[in-house]
Amino acid sequence: MKIKNILSLAFILCCVPALADETVLTPASVIAKSTPNDWRQPSQDLLLHMQLESGEVVFELAPSFAAKHVENLITLINQEYFDGLAIIRSQDNYVVQWGDPNAQTAEAKSIGKAKAELEPEFYRKLDGIDINYIESRDPYADRVGFSHGFTVGSDDPHKEDSRAWLTHCYGALGVGRGMAANSGNSAELYVVTGHAPRHLDRNVTLIGRAIFGMDKLSSLRRGTEPLGFYETAEEATIIKSIRLGSKLPKDQQSNLEIMRTDTATFADYVKSRTTRLDEWFIDPTGKIGICNVGVPTRQVGDN
Amino acid sequence: MKIKNILSLAFILCCVPALADETVLTPASVIAKSTPNDWRQPSQDLLLHMQLESGEVVFELAPSFAAKHVENLITLINQEYFDGLAIIRSQDNYVVQWGDPNAQTAEAKSIGKAKAELEPEFYRKLDGIDINYIESRDPYADRVGFSHGFTVGSDDPHKEDSRAWLTHCYGALGVGRGMAANSGNSAELYVVTGHAPRHLDRNVTLIGRAIFGMDKLSSLRRGTEPLGFYETAEEATIIKSIRLGSKLPKDQQSNLEIMRTDTATFADYVKSRTTRLDEWFIDPTGKIGICNVGVPTRQVGDN
Repeated sequence: MKIKNILSLAFILCCVPALADETVLTPASVIAKSTPNDWRQPSQDLLLHMQLESGEVVFELAPSFAAKHVENLITLINQEYFDGLAIIRSQDNYVVQWGDPNAQTAEAKSIGKAKAELEPEFYRKLDGIDINYIESRDPYADRVGFSHGFTVGSDDPHKEDSRAWLTHCYGALGVGRGMAANSGNSAELYVVTGHAPRHLDRNVTLIGRAIFGMDKLSSLRRGTEPLGFYETAEEATIIKSIRLGSKLPKDQQSNLEIMRTDTATFADYVKSRTTRLDEWFIDPTGKIGICNVGVPTRQVGDN
Repeated sequence: MKIKNILSLAFILCCVPALADETVLTPASVIAKSTPNDWRQPSQDLLLHMQLESGEVVFELAPSFAAKHVENLITLINQEYFDGLAIIRSQDNYVVQWGDPNAQTAEAKSIGKAKAELEPEFYRKLDGIDINYIESRDPYADRVGFSHGFTVGSDDPHKEDSRAWLTHCYGALGVGRGMAANSGNSAELYVVTGHAPRHLDRNVTLIGRAIFGMDKLSSLRRGTEPLGFYETAEEATIIKSIRLGSKLPKDQQSNLEIMRTDTATFADYVKSRTTRLDEWFIDPTGKIGICNVGVPTRQVGDN
């Protein structure tokens, strides 16, 4: 029996019309009217492919915000550091975290040529990056917007010495650290699986975001120890491998395209998410939070 | 092997100190210093116990915001309407939804004495309810705060005819509806499992929130059909029963206490979540979003 035939007709709670009405500005109509130039193919050098028994998760890295942590991570990946390590934490409405279950012990896996400590990259100078700001009254940052697909918060751009930082929205990829600011080195990573924990912004280095397969991480059984750590090694999920896209055979590379966030089309997309004109909505809010926009992705070709 | 002994020492990404330092205002120290009067036991008549094979989920209902939908839901529950029905949708970073897989067909289960249609309760008059507002620049509402444990948005309270509504934070319990505003009747329910979909505020009736066991719903495998519906009946999770607390034997009733949200202690708790003084934080934001506060719960007694 197919459930969907019965139920998707009613109570859908949202907004994917069977046919996009191109005369009304909706997320579906904006995508339908987009042109090839509204989309980009991320660099294979910045795509991180995580293989689990349940499938694949793909992340895009953000070196313009965390160059040193990305470099160290790539060193680790190219040493196949993560292969055979594990997801060791799943805390409900918070994060999933992975790394070496034997870290801090005599059995710890060598990080090889990677650096053990890195200066934090919690934020950067606002000068020198492009941000497409959106109209949003953000609880945490003076301004919010997008930089090449990543959600960004910043100080008031009219001030001197303003900073910009990646925000902890759903799917954000971060570098775990201990008490010291420089104790993160990309060997332990986490991803946001619940409501955006924006209080972590500027307190930890974010280096990218998931663009495919988040459900493989977000639906993991929650750990029962404090902070969602798993109690036993058996409960942890083994990481089969983490590879850069550019090191994969062509037929295993991602064929995802991501909507550019510096175009009039994306500005329309933000509008369509701000004021929902899909038929289901009765009283569109006309307002938006930075973590509620979402950047569309699509698969092209045969992969 | 216990994972936690090794890993919880480092990279904890957060903030549960081994011993609460009562001289510093942290979430742990506020809870440690609270008195019995800072906590309440919810009415057993307003607790909804959902039994799944994986365990129990408990919700508290909010009749002050959705009296008719709560009344209809209680009618359905007392007819044991939900027993044997199913969770039919799990959409990543959005909602889990349950009801009758045969709804809208000849095999639909009878809703008995419950009403098939109800006037929407998307919002209510601000007059007549107590809200403890918090200082937060909310993207969606003029003001935000708490009303008896529930997160609430409102129009500017100084205006005439201001409205108040429950907000779609993580764990919010809502009534699915079709295209028509009055097409929800509490026979199909959903709970927020991802980043707060606040664009749904005032477009659908919220009737409560989860206070225990959310991980049982949030970690369900995501459905692969559009909008996260499951493809086959086999993938759906059977609901063993839904009961009101007051109809359960005493030894099966919840012994949860919830921190009151109208006290000086809770105001301190909000402060401690706004400016995180736990040792791990280097640059506390000094800011907070309504869905990032969380209302503490604790278990008392032996149950």
